[in-house]
Amino acid sequence: MVYITRREQFSAAHKLFRKEWSEEKNNEVFGKCSNPNWHGHNYELFVTVKGEQNPDTSFVANLSTISVILREKVISKLDHKNINLDVDFMKGKTATTETLAVEIWKQIETPINQLGCTLHCVKIRETENNYVEYFGS
Amino acid sequence: MVYITRREQFSAAHKLFRKEWSEEKNNEVFGKCSNPNWHGHNYELFVTVKGEQNPDTSFVANLSTISVILREKVISKLDHKNINLDVDFMKGKTATTETLAVEIWKQIETPINQLGCTLHCVKIRETENNYVEYFGS
Amino acid sequence: MVYITRREQFSAAHKLFRKEWSEEKNNEVFGKCSNPNWHGHNYELFVTVKGEQNPDTSFVANLSTISVILREKVISKLDHKNINLDVDFMKGKTATTETLAVEIWKQIETPINQLGCTLHCVKIRETENNYVEYFGS
Amino acid sequence: MVYITRREQFSAAHKLFRKEWSEEKNNEVFGKCSNPNWHGHNYELFVTVKGEQNPDTSFVANLSTISVILREKVISKLDHKNINLDVDFMKGKTATTETLAVEIWKQIETPINQLGCTLHCVKIRETENNYVEYFGS
Amino acid sequence: MVYITRREQFSAAHKLFRKEWSEEKNNEVFGKCSNPNWHGHNYELFVTVKGEQNPDTSFVANLSTISVILREKVISKLDHKNINLDVDFMKGKTATTETLAVEIWKQIETPINQLGCTLHCVKIRETENNYVEYFGS
Amino acid sequence: MVYITRREQFSAAHKLFRKEWSEEKNNEVFGKCSNPNWHGHNYELFVTVKGEQNPDTSFVANLSTISVILREKVISKLDHKNINLDVDFMKGKTATTETLAVEIWKQIETPINQLGCTLHCVKIRETENNYVEYFGS
Repeated sequence: MVYITRREQFSAAHKLFRKEWSEEKNNEVFGKCSNPNWHGHNYELFVTVKGEQNPDTSFVANLSTISVILREKVISKLDHKNINLDVDFMKGKTATTETLAVEIWKQIETPINQLGCTLHCVKIRETENNYVEYFGS
Repeated sequence: MVYITRREQFSAAHKLFRKEWSEEKNNEVFGKCSNPNWHGHNYELFVTVKGEQNPDTSFVANLSTISVILREKVISKLDHKNINLDVDFMKGKTATTETLAVEIWKQIETPINQLGCTLHCVKIRETENNYVEYFGS
Repeated sequence: MVYITRREQFSAAHKLFRKEWSEEKNNEVFGKCSNPNWHGHNYELFVTVKGEQNPDTSFVANLSTISVILREKVISKLDHKNINLDVDFMKGKTATTETLAVEIWKQIETPINQLGCTLHCVKIRETENNYVEYFGS
Repeated sequence: MVYITRREQFSAAHKLFRKEWSEEKNNEVFGKCSNPNWHGHNYELFVTVKGEQNPDTSFVANLSTISVILREKVISKLDHKNINLDVDFMKGKTATTETLAVEIWKQIETPINQLGCTLHCVKIRETENNYVEYFGS
Repeated sequence: MVYITRREQFSAAHKLFRKEWSEEKNNEVFGKCSNPNWHGHNYELFVTVKGEQNPDTSFVANLSTISVILREKVISKLDHKNINLDVDFMKGKTATTETLAVEIWKQIETPINQLGCTLHCVKIRETENNYVEYFGS
Repeated sequence: MVYITRREQFSAAHKLFRKEWSEEKNNEVFGKCSNPNWHGHNYELFVTVKGEQNPDTSFVANLSTISVILREKVISKLDHKNINLDVDFMKGKTATTETLAVEIWKQIETPINQLGCTLHCVKIRETENNYVEYFGS
C-alpha cells in the first residue's frame, strides 16, 4: 500500500454567517470572517489516495489523471468563484473549511475510487496558519 | 545605507471590472478575475525601507514600529475586507495589484519617512505566481 | 470526524546538555547543540485537534479560540525566551524537541479538550530539516 | 512514542518507460515523463522514525545519526545521478516515485531500526504538486 | 513605473561539461554536475516586466498574457526535456543557469516588449540554495 | 553582467541590548528582543555576486566555491553559536540584523572579489517577516 498526494489550488471569496442569525450574532461567533462584503483566500487542496502499485506502470494511479478529476469536479467550480454563491455543492451550507473538505470528498470519492485506488484524505490549507483534514468518516 | 523589509499579510475579496464596460467586455479583458460575485486571495505585503543605521540602536528603524504603521494604515483596512467595497483608499479604482501597491505606498510614505528612514519599495504577492513591486515613481 | 490544525511560531534560545555530564561528554553526545553559550531557532508549532463539526457553526472548533489558548499557554512562555532557563514547564528537563512536544501537549490538553474536541497531535518544526510529532502516548 | 522526521534532498534525472513497450505506448501511458532524453527534479526526502525517548538523551534518535545513514545509503547514490542508469537499488525497475519510496525504505530499514527506533514513513516530494508516502507494507 | 513578476516552472535534465575537455577535466571544474548520465532539477522561472499602468485596465500588462508567452517560448521547450539535447536555443552551449537565463531573455524580449512594457529581469531558481538573475546587459 | 545568489543557513542565539543602558531602557527600546537570557533564530543568508560569465565555464563564479567561502568565513562562526558572545567579528557590537549584514559583508568581500566577480548584496532573513539587505555602502 502506497499513498500519493496531488496538490491543486484555487482562489475564492467567501464569508462565514448563518442567515438565521443577526449580523451581531454572526459577528460574535465568526468575527471578521463574517464581513458581509466577503473576503477571500488562496486555498491549497491536497488530495491523498492509497492503493497497491499497478505492476505495469508502478503507479498507484497516474497523478495526471487525478489532477484532471480534481480540476473538473472541484477546481473549475471553486477557482475565482464565491464559495457561498457560485458553488453548487456548497449551496445552503456554511462555508467553513471543515464543510468544504467534507463536500469536496463527496465530489471526488466515486471518480477517484473508479481508478482502482481509494480516496484517503482531503486536506485544505486556508492560510499559512489554518489547515483542515478529512478522512471520510 | 541598509535596506530592511517587513512582511505582513491580509486576506481579501476583490474583482477586476470597470463599471463603464459591459460584463462581456469585462470578461474579455479581465477573464475569470471579473467574476461578478467576487473571488479572493491571501495577499502578502513586503515593505522595504532604507536608511542609515541609528548609532544608538544599530537599527535603520525598529521593524516593530513599521509593523504598527502597516497594521494601522493598511492591514486593518484590507484584512477580511472587500477591496472594491470596503477600502477607503481604493474607492473608485480598479482593484489590480498594481493599483493596490501604488495606493498602499501613498498611505504609508509619510509615516514611514517620519521615522527618519525612506520608503523604498512596496511589494505585493497575490498568488505564488504573481507579484507586483512599486518604488514610488 | 474532521481534523483542524493551527500553526503558531516562537523564536527561542536553548542548548542540549546534561548537568551530570562533563562538557566533553555533552559535546560527544549532543555535538554543536551543546554549545555552552546557547544557540536558537525559529520554531514552528502545529497543533491538530479532531472532533465532530458543531451543527450551528460547522466548526470543529474556532481556530481563533485555539490560537488564544496556544498563545496564553505556550507561545507567551517560549517566544523570545531561553527554553532551558525561562520556561516553567521545561525546568529540569533536557531541551530536545521531543521533550518540548510532550510538555507542550501537557500544557494544552485540558483547555483544548474543554472546547468539546480532542487534542490529536503536537508537531514542532525546529529547522527546515528536523521535525517532531507527538500524539499523546 | 514520539515521531521524528529528517528531511534530505537530491537532484536527479529519470524517465518513466518500460523497455517492453514501444515509444508510442510509453508516451500514451507516461506522457511527457517518458521523454527519451530524460528530465529531472529536485526531490525532497522526508524519513520519519518512531520510538520511545532515550532517558539519557531525551532523543528518540539523534537526527544527525539518521542524516548520516540517509546520506550514505540513499543521497550519495541518488544526488546528481540518473535514477534509471546510476542507482544500484533501482536497476531494472520503473523509476516512479512510488517505487523509489519503496526501494529507499528497503535500503534504510535495517540501519534505522538498529538505532533502537522503528522506521515509520518514507515520504518523497517530487514537485510542489506531487508527493508519495510509504509506510512499509 | 510599476514592476510585475510572473513565476513559471519546469522540470528538466542537464549536465555541465565541455566536449573539448576530458571527463577528468569536466569533473574537476564542474564536480558532480558533470555526471555523464545527467541529473535534473525543478527550475523556477521568475520574469519581471516594468512599465506604466494602462489607464483602461490599471495593468502594466496582463500576467495571463505574459504567462502565455512564457509557456510558448520557454516552458514548452524546457519542461520534461533535456536542456543539453532537446532545447533549440541551448544547442552548443554549456547548460549553466547563467546561460539559461541569458538565452531565455533572448527568447522573450521581443514578444514581451511588444505588449507595451519592458522586460526587466529573468531570474531562475535552480535549487533552494542557488539562484541566477539577468537584467539584459 | 549576471547576478548569482547562494543561500546558506545558521541557527544562533542573540539578544539586543546596550551595556550602557539599564535593563528598563533596553526593554523600552528593544522590547522582547532584549530578554537577558537570550533568544534565537534560524537565519537564512543570501549572498549575491555579479560579474561577466567566464567563457570557459559559462559561470560567473562556481557557487560551490562561494559556498566554501561562506562556510569558512561566516557559517562556521555563527552556526549553533551566540552572536553576542562567540563571534569574533561581532564583538562589542549590537547584534541587530543590520549590523550582522554589514559585518558579514566585511568578512567575505575580499575572498569573493578574488574570484574575479564582485560582491553585490548580503541579505539576511531573520524570521519569515523580517529581512535586511546591505549593498556595501
